[in-house]
Amino acid sequence: MYLNSRINLTRLFVECDLMEHKFIELNAAQEHYLYSVLRKKDGSELLLFNGRDGGFLSVIEASGKRKFSVYCKKKIIAQTSSTDLWLLFVPIKRMRMDFMVQKITELGVSKIWPVQSEFGQVKQLKYEKLRSNMIEAVEQTERLDLPEIEEFMDLQTVLGNWPEDRMLIVCDESKSEPKQARAMTELNSAKVGKAAIIIGPEGGFSSKEREQLNLHSCTEHISLGPRILRSDTAAIAALSIYQSNFGDWYNEKKN
Amino acid sequence: MYLNSRINLTRLFVECDLMEHKFIELNAAQEHYLYSVLRKKDGSELLLFNGRDGGFLSVIEASGKRKFSVYCKKKIIAQTSSTDLWLLFVPIKRMRMDFMVQKITELGVSKIWPVQSEFGQVKQLKYEKLRSNMIEAVEQTERLDLPEIEEFMDLQTVLGNWPEDRMLIVCDESKSEPKQARAMTELNSAKVGKAAIIIGPEGGFSSKEREQLNLHSCTEHISLGPRILRSDTAAIAALSIYQSNFGDWYNEKKN
Repeated sequence: MYLNSRINLTRLFVECDLMEHKFIELNAAQEHYLYSVLRKKDGSELLLFNGRDGGFLSVIEASGKRKFSVYCKKKIIAQTSSTDLWLLFVPIKRMRMDFMVQKITELGVSKIWPVQSEFGQVKQLKYEKLRSNMIEAVEQTERLDLPEIEEFMDLQTVLGNWPEDRMLIVCDESKSEPKQARAMTELNSAKVGKAAIIIGPEGGFSSKEREQLNLHSCTEHISLGPRILRSDTAAIAALSIYQSNFGDWYNEKKN
Repeated sequence: MYLNSRINLTRLFVECDLMEHKFIELNAAQEHYLYSVLRKKDGSELLLFNGRDGGFLSVIEASGKRKFSVYCKKKIIAQTSSTDLWLLFVPIKRMRMDFMVQKITELGVSKIWPVQSEFGQVKQLKYEKLRSNMIEAVEQTERLDLPEIEEFMDLQTVLGNWPEDRMLIVCDESKSEPKQARAMTELNSAKVGKAAIIIGPEGGFSSKEREQLNLHSCTEHISLGPRILRSDTAAIAALSIYQSNFGDWYNEKKN
């Protein structure tokens, strides 16, 4: 399964369908990356993947004057999906959001869901930027699938359509209601099936939003320790703890 | 203990000693931050701290023409220390290192220790940059102490002087020796007393370094899941999991 890391192939995400014996044209950014950054040459091998068709051992066939074509030689890894684990977050600014999206992708999130909150500071979202950060992270790490991105909507709408069989783990770092929260490690692992983690905005959810969350039958409030974490830190920490206690790190351990 | 967040005081780290009824002169960067960024005025209240003397309710006394002086009125928070938890890491480049140092400070590391490794890409370290990232993070979060920074030295020297009573938890994301590693949650919590976490460089430790780590009596190898994490992600994830299972988030839960 992790053959590609063992044989140390450069991993490249492409949008088009992949199949054996197909030639793939690369876009300008990919050409620049392979040619100028990585100094790849005619005959260099790569692993191509698109999030759907698995991983393909591929070869650069022509590299004269920055013109690349890649030959998709052989499928060497079957497509895999990440653990079903969602992260809902209130968008934050620029660089910290880029970092957060990269990190949670590395940590194996399967869907991200940007949520509008009264205290959120970002009103418009650049989906292309979110996606390019995810692509960078899946190229970097061992996963073959790209997380889904849900539409940016307000908390009430999110909760109104919430699937009943999915636990919503609430991390509200404003610590407005610390008595309700317990540590994530205390969640009953038998009850944690499908899950989603929601991270509040930096100022915390509004009292109206907290009430909506409290009234909802699927929510579990947890605490991320005695310090107040920034929301990007909270997202990365919560996903790490979930994965190690209930997610695919835990399952890896059991198998 | 977390009074300052409840009353929403701006937190400012200063280098000088603090005591009640003392006037503090701020440097140009601090003046700029308070005056131009936060738009503070004469009479505005702050929380001053220096990592040693506790937290002081303070008041801006004169703010005409960008000339600030702050009056240290009353000590309102006793000095606290973070859990004794070290992080050893092989320095990475620029922005990702800044980000990592901020995040691990938020997560409560008590000492950071940069380690030279054969596959490390950074040969010289800017201590002032490390420190300013830590200060930014302690101002942001609820902690009153600044993590210590140990000298940049090679792994052999680090291990040669290793304190026998401290477990060294090894996260080597190269996955070169996956069979040795178990999940961090499997560590025996009775045995985890004083601990340090060490994160390998992006290419993994060299075989010589792995041997040095394997032979050392204090090391425990752990895995951070099925994907290969970048070393900054690994540091943040490992600290989060340690804190929630054995560290001060866990103790908070017990108390």
